[in-house]
Amino acid sequence: MIKQVPKLYGFQLSKFKCESKIPTFELLHKLGIVSYPRSGLANWTTMGLLIQDKVSSIIRHCLDHCGYEELRLSLLSHKSLWEKTGRWDQQEIFKLKNDDFLLVPTAEEEITEYAKRNLDSYKQLPFKFYQINQKFRDEKRPRGGLLRGKEFLMKDAYSFDIDEAHALKNYSSVVDAYHQIFRKIGVPYVKAKADSGEMGGDMSHEWHFLNENGEDTVFTCNSCGHISNSEVTTAFPIKEAESNKLAEGDDDVAVGYFMNRDKSTLICAYYPASRTLEPRFVQQEVPDLDLSHCKPEKEILEEFSTNTGDELSKRVVRIMDARLTSRSNFPDFPVNFINRSMITTLTDIPIVLAKEGEICGECEKGHLVQSNAIEVGHTFYLDEKYSKPLDLKVVVPVNEGTLETKNVKMGCYGIGISRVIAAVAEINRDSHGLRWPASIAPWQVTVISNEESRFVKELASLLSETDYRWDDRDVSIGKKIMQSNMMGIPLVVILGKNYPRVEIEVRGERKNGYYDSLTRLQKQKQKEDDFYWETQYLDGKDVKHFVDKEHLPFVVKNLLDYL
Amino acid sequence: MIKQVPKLYGFQLSKFKCESKIPTFELLHKLGIVSYPRSGLANWTTMGLLIQDKVSSIIRHCLDHCGYEELRLSLLSHKSLWEKTGRWDQQEIFKLKNDDFLLVPTAEEEITEYAKRNLDSYKQLPFKFYQINQKFRDEKRPRGGLLRGKEFLMKDAYSFDIDEAHALKNYSSVVDAYHQIFRKIGVPYVKAKADSGEMGGDMSHEWHFLNENGEDTVFTCNSCGHISNSEVTTAFPIKEAESNKLAEGDDDVAVGYFMNRDKSTLICAYYPASRTLEPRFVQQEVPDLDLSHCKPEKEILEEFSTNTGDELSKRVVRIMDARLTSRSNFPDFPVNFINRSMITTLTDIPIVLAKEGEICGECEKGHLVQSNAIEVGHTFYLDEKYSKPLDLKVVVPVNEGTLETKNVKMGCYGIGISRVIAAVAEINRDSHGLRWPASIAPWQVTVISNEESRFVKELASLLSETDYRWDDRDVSIGKKIMQSNMMGIPLVVILGKNYPRVEIEVRGERKNGYYDSLTRLQKQKQKEDDFYWETQYLDGKDVKHFVDKEHLPFVVKNLLDYL
Repeated sequence: MIKQVPKLYGFQLSKFKCESKIPTFELLHKLGIVSYPRSGLANWTTMGLLIQDKVSSIIRHCLDHCGYEELRLSLLSHKSLWEKTGRWDQQEIFKLKNDDFLLVPTAEEEITEYAKRNLDSYKQLPFKFYQINQKFRDEKRPRGGLLRGKEFLMKDAYSFDIDEAHALKNYSSVVDAYHQIFRKIGVPYVKAKADSGEMGGDMSHEWHFLNENGEDTVFTCNSCGHISNSEVTTAFPIKEAESNKLAEGDDDVAVGYFMNRDKSTLICAYYPASRTLEPRFVQQEVPDLDLSHCKPEKEILEEFSTNTGDELSKRVVRIMDARLTSRSNFPDFPVNFINRSMITTLTDIPIVLAKEGEICGECEKGHLVQSNAIEVGHTFYLDEKYSKPLDLKVVVPVNEGTLETKNVKMGCYGIGISRVIAAVAEINRDSHGLRWPASIAPWQVTVISNEESRFVKELASLLSETDYRWDDRDVSIGKKIMQSNMMGIPLVVILGKNYPRVEIEVRGERKNGYYDSLTRLQKQKQKEDDFYWETQYLDGKDVKHFVDKEHLPFVVKNLLDYL
Repeated sequence: MIKQVPKLYGFQLSKFKCESKIPTFELLHKLGIVSYPRSGLANWTTMGLLIQDKVSSIIRHCLDHCGYEELRLSLLSHKSLWEKTGRWDQQEIFKLKNDDFLLVPTAEEEITEYAKRNLDSYKQLPFKFYQINQKFRDEKRPRGGLLRGKEFLMKDAYSFDIDEAHALKNYSSVVDAYHQIFRKIGVPYVKAKADSGEMGGDMSHEWHFLNENGEDTVFTCNSCGHISNSEVTTAFPIKEAESNKLAEGDDDVAVGYFMNRDKSTLICAYYPASRTLEPRFVQQEVPDLDLSHCKPEKEILEEFSTNTGDELSKRVVRIMDARLTSRSNFPDFPVNFINRSMITTLTDIPIVLAKEGEICGECEKGHLVQSNAIEVGHTFYLDEKYSKPLDLKVVVPVNEGTLETKNVKMGCYGIGISRVIAAVAEINRDSHGLRWPASIAPWQVTVISNEESRFVKELASLLSETDYRWDDRDVSIGKKIMQSNMMGIPLVVILGKNYPRVEIEVRGERKNGYYDSLTRLQKQKQKEDDFYWETQYLDGKDVKHFVDKEHLPFVVKNLLDYL
């Protein structure tokens, strides 16, 4: 059976001219991959679904291999669980009109409940599940088409382990699987240390595609290679000698005031007024710092002053950002605090958000390089954040027959599939249109012929193992080639007058070493009898290959492998 | 690679004993195919997804072949379109809290809008689309687990044609595809004439599995074979001689009053008081009968009496149900209507719902047989019901270059996939558990061995083309067999002490002619050298087959084909 292009392929394209100024989300629409019935919503066409399926297959393959089992939870979830975890009144949740159900934004609550119902003995652990389905977020300012929508396709995986050691091992096996997944997708990516935010837990990484249009910012150290999200990147100032210019105007000092949980300690964080204080960096120095209530400075100071507790146990901790120097203009101390022996001062602590060029807080050697990025995945170690409020426990033998009831340790791992598609489209496009990596292209080869269709039949059986589509529309060859390239299909095979000699046009991105490997293979093959394979180059890049039909499957396969 | 049973397979089964009194929806849960986080909602496990995928593949195969193209529309839909079609205030719609969006119960509105955005010329028609995704209905009394839920998996297809002739041809091609789909699923089904109800349009069929626990009722004529939903089945009374007994108590006559649209005609429908009047049957005789407003009898009569229109143009139509006789006790005529020449009387019209045993309204020969049924699909010819309010038009050349702007003619076609699964489970189960048709079983063969795993490896490569799973759990052989049967897997292959001779146990339902075909094949094979194949029968049914490993793939394939 000959596989044809989808019926709506190219419908909108007859008068469409691609230009680099057309935003990618609009291009995805023009090319008929998705349409947006409403801001933040998407309808996926056959072509879009083909891409979705490719990405999903890669993810399934790697997670199945990692021992994760697929399931699919309901898209509706009752408030009962969300009230227990304190997430029912989160921002951006879609609730149904009766106020009892929400549309799932993510599934920690439901999967924990699911695990609970299935867990009889610690021997069953680990549980490892994933699902690929829609998620919903009442995004007030949806933008970028698929990049930030009200509804999106997501893979979410969850792990349940008996203790932290097992859970962290599991975490690292998912990290390995993520590396595999992103390598297979074939677009350069980074794994960045990240903040756990809403999700809870105390270890997390973001998975990014680097791209100038990305909304996230990551810092990479040019020495140790450590990568982290800007929210969690600590840095030291550039040495005096280098920094004369940078330090200008940094002499004014601002102060952030905090208290610890029992309100006995006032924490004063001093930092350059021109920079942004990151309270969590301060918390790293004073672990019992209370970040749960954001209060105005005045209230904090008043509360500390009027605190009726033991006056003698009151303490003050002063934390000085690493960028402050003796030249800095410190403000006066705002409260009357006589007990000078109870004032501790910590200096040289990085407590503001890092800036390009500063010294890496990890290795304290290299300089930070700032990049924009598109977040496409996130891995979290959740610890007991959900198992505790939802009461997911196991009885575990500890030693010599003693039993202990423990909360299960969880992890959760997301990949935004619709986001991956939008991001890859954004990153790989050019002024001629999209350019899909061979691994996730809707199809890999467009077959074009204005010759008799019996040639196509012959070719179809030769290409049976290939992911090709025959463009059988009543359109000129030139237009078909242009539209296939615009759609981002890696290869076009053209059956022309010289049949059985056929032409292959290359659209895809070339990997490093592509030409070396390809030329080596080509030379080797050309030595064989009757193996015709010539290449035409433009700007040093291969654009056309000419081969005889019987060698087409071999050459196509190799072009795709090396692309 | 050896394919193993899913990790949660059999988890809940260690102490579970199947009995026929356990309701099927509970059995599906106990067996770990779905779980119900909340009444009307379902979580699908790996096993459930395997079944879903089998059903979806069958549907995809048949619809792709029929020229339908898959897409996936957003699950959220904005009220703007639904207000135009008058469906925003339908019952059982899930609306989001902001009152602007609903969760799609079905997608006529969105697909019409989608078609509109893609339609440039009549030459593009027909458009044929389908999607497989979740649908939502705020079911107040969800029941039967998957049978009637708040969220369900559904295939919905839509067709757009240039005129009625093309649309009806399209309708009939979908009917053919539906026959293929249900034949492949392999459970006896019927196609019944049905009412279009809410959906609109004027031709529709329901697709049912016949089952005593079904909530629908269909009538089949034992002569012409016509099948229809009880709501649309017309019938004539059994002849006097036969009906003496039946007619008893039917002498009292009830009347239903209606008016036509311009309120000039009063329609009085006389029928046996013991039966149920079906106003649409009356409407078939008086097409301009107004069914849009249900008013109490008194109001209708008063309105007709006091109608200030031309008194001379007032008319009365009296319709007598076919079951009434001269013996019937007619009530007095309720209004003062002197103009006797304007009274028309139609007799012998079937206007009440049919009953088992009555004469078929189609052929007027056979008797009606009543069955309970589970509706699993519906096909509708929609005509312009949605294209008109949503303004989906094409400009069509009519004759000699004249152009005409016409509304596109639509059809829509649903199959409830989660319902099919629940219904097949219900119909095919017995006291030992479920029993899936080979076509939609989660897998077709469970491989069981307590011998060395190298035997399993050997067997796995022999069975590579077979949809098998190895049950590698630490459970006794007897339990594994019982659980595989309970799960409804068609075959169990047991590697025991006599390996390389293996045993096959049969669980599946046998089709007509199974034993003839199988015995013929078996005899033919037994003549071949070294083809060992013996069968053990119980109650005249094959339960066990014994073959040598090298013939296992052949025998397994044939057992499955004939099952």
